[in-house]
Amino acid sequence: MLDDKNLYKTSISQYGEFGLIQHLTESFTISDPSTIKGIGDDAAVLDPKGKKVLVTSDILIENVHFNLAYTPLKHLGYKCVVISLSDLAAMNATPGQIIISIAVSNRFPVEALDEIYSGIHAACKQYKVDLAGGDTASSNLGLVINSTAIGYAEENEIIYRNGAKPNDLLVVSGDLGGAYFGLQVLERENVAFKSNPDLQPDLAGYSYILERQLKPEARTEVKSLLKEMDLHPTSMIDLSDGLASEIIHLSQQSKVGFSIYEEKIPMDNQVITTAEEFGINPVTGILNGGEDYELVFTIPITEHDKIKHNPNFTVIGHATADKNNVLITKGSSQVIPLTAQGWDAYLNKKKKV
Amino acid sequence: MLDDKNLYKTSISQYGEFGLIQHLTESFTISDPSTIKGIGDDAAVLDPKGKKVLVTSDILIENVHFNLAYTPLKHLGYKCVVISLSDLAAMNATPGQIIISIAVSNRFPVEALDEIYSGIHAACKQYKVDLAGGDTASSNLGLVINSTAIGYAEENEIIYRNGAKPNDLLVVSGDLGGAYFGLQVLERENVAFKSNPDLQPDLAGYSYILERQLKPEARTEVKSLLKEMDLHPTSMIDLSDGLASEIIHLSQQSKVGFSIYEEKIPMDNQVITTAEEFGINPVTGILNGGEDYELVFTIPITEHDKIKHNPNFTVIGHATADKNNVLITKGSSQVIPLTAQGWDAYLNKKKKV
Repeated sequence: MLDDKNLYKTSISQYGEFGLIQHLTESFTISDPSTIKGIGDDAAVLDPKGKKVLVTSDILIENVHFNLAYTPLKHLGYKCVVISLSDLAAMNATPGQIIISIAVSNRFPVEALDEIYSGIHAACKQYKVDLAGGDTASSNLGLVINSTAIGYAEENEIIYRNGAKPNDLLVVSGDLGGAYFGLQVLERENVAFKSNPDLQPDLAGYSYILERQLKPEARTEVKSLLKEMDLHPTSMIDLSDGLASEIIHLSQQSKVGFSIYEEKIPMDNQVITTAEEFGINPVTGILNGGEDYELVFTIPITEHDKIKHNPNFTVIGHATADKNNVLITKGSSQVIPLTAQGWDAYLNKKKKV
Repeated sequence: MLDDKNLYKTSISQYGEFGLIQHLTESFTISDPSTIKGIGDDAAVLDPKGKKVLVTSDILIENVHFNLAYTPLKHLGYKCVVISLSDLAAMNATPGQIIISIAVSNRFPVEALDEIYSGIHAACKQYKVDLAGGDTASSNLGLVINSTAIGYAEENEIIYRNGAKPNDLLVVSGDLGGAYFGLQVLERENVAFKSNPDLQPDLAGYSYILERQLKPEARTEVKSLLKEMDLHPTSMIDLSDGLASEIIHLSQQSKVGFSIYEEKIPMDNQVITTAEEFGINPVTGILNGGEDYELVFTIPITEHDKIKHNPNFTVIGHATADKNNVLITKGSSQVIPLTAQGWDAYLNKKKKV
């Protein structure tokens, strides 16, 4: 739908092993002081300089996590870095390195791999992380990307999922739902394109939500924002899945309940208008959709003054002593228990161990 | 060929996300003192205790790296840990943690995942490493496993690929070729089974080489052996690919040549007899086959006395000043330049970035 495949010509086999790896990685340089040895040996060698080391891994499968019909390869490369950096941001760690494994079928020409690596390169530059290694393999199964991110933090900086206390305020960064409704637009246009390939996709007016879906960003700057504000979250998680299942994670691990106010949930105007167009309640999309990669965290209620006028953050509710009971208040009085959609839809969703 | 699929009954969707993850990982405990937080948050939290941190990642794709027709799932789980620990052993690092991403199709019942995780568990126990996280996802593409291993070493313990000097001795651990010829037997029996499913596979007399293929071990004990022997390798790599391409890596990165003596290459008697049976020169299998996961390293010639009677190691040649010229001497005089098979066969082989 978006790519002209005829532009791609060079077969991977023309390069051979060493040539291909050198070609794909020659524009990458080492810039993080914690990287002693990046690409080119049996393992990356890192110097944590006295800090704790945080490691997280995510796997992306073609036609499960992305659809190449409407995902530009450069954006896919960028996104595979971002989703792992988002996990580090959720621990309040500073990212240092990324390791990428790619398995690719022989229908992929070198120029397509170049596009993926140009996105990885752009993300490394944006987030000041080093590509420190990985693995490339052939795949008769389609495209698979695994990204492993390595970050650093002082022990007392690390924020787990299990520290929320009753009465803590529940806070989110940014606004929610963009990625989910961006995906709805892309899926709709892809269906239209498949039934009539001469049709140009109608993407005007959706630029913000499309970017949220195709080129998400990790909230790695939140660590320094929290420090500047002298704010001390008691628990934190990133919004890779829907808001509901992430809050249930905080609830279960912190052994508290939560009460959320629907009207407090921050959303862009494009989310509201697109939700209306699709006949979907925008909050339903936010609770179950995912992929916004914002952070959701709890702070002691005593720190409310530090955050209440900050445009980067929104208080959407609070923790309660009613363990494992997560409630959302709609309008003035209607209270609904939240469940994590997707539990039984396991096979259509990516899940973290 | 080896599994009775009828034994497997429970659908993954019966468990739901949290239930499945808990079920798969409940038998894993944290034992390494460097693991502060393992499974259950956005990232693993590790304490390197002043050491350098080594990280490596490998991806395994169904029908590229393994064939479920003859690979027991427990062995596959064990092997996916071993191949990454082998990369750490090749850097002379001590392994601490493993992070496993698995993507699996809905044709996989929970019992099949249990088998894979029982192999991962056995490997974690054998090598004293902690399962510290990962990702599970659905796959419409078959089974995909990515393993990331994290290890530790003092800076002066780390052995790179680039330190070999002319006249250094070239040494290998263990014996070679078992994994390659084990694979030939399994492939032959699989072809026979496919043409006549009533046929029982004839695997008697191949137990050593079958184990080398199906349940390889990582030479993580070499680090302490080297220390006991007061031996200081100048370069090291593991034999995941064939001996030829690994020695060419050492040659290119160390900017030395190598001269290898065919009759010095250590091989088990089962390798010799099986090679004869298949009409393949055993050395050809060793040079190009791979998957032995032994270590090959160089030591200063002045340290020869320390190693010459050690049954764990064999000197197979030496480094030369003739940069990038890797030669093998066959018999008394025939000298052949070595090339890395598989360069142009890229798409049929796994390659490291």
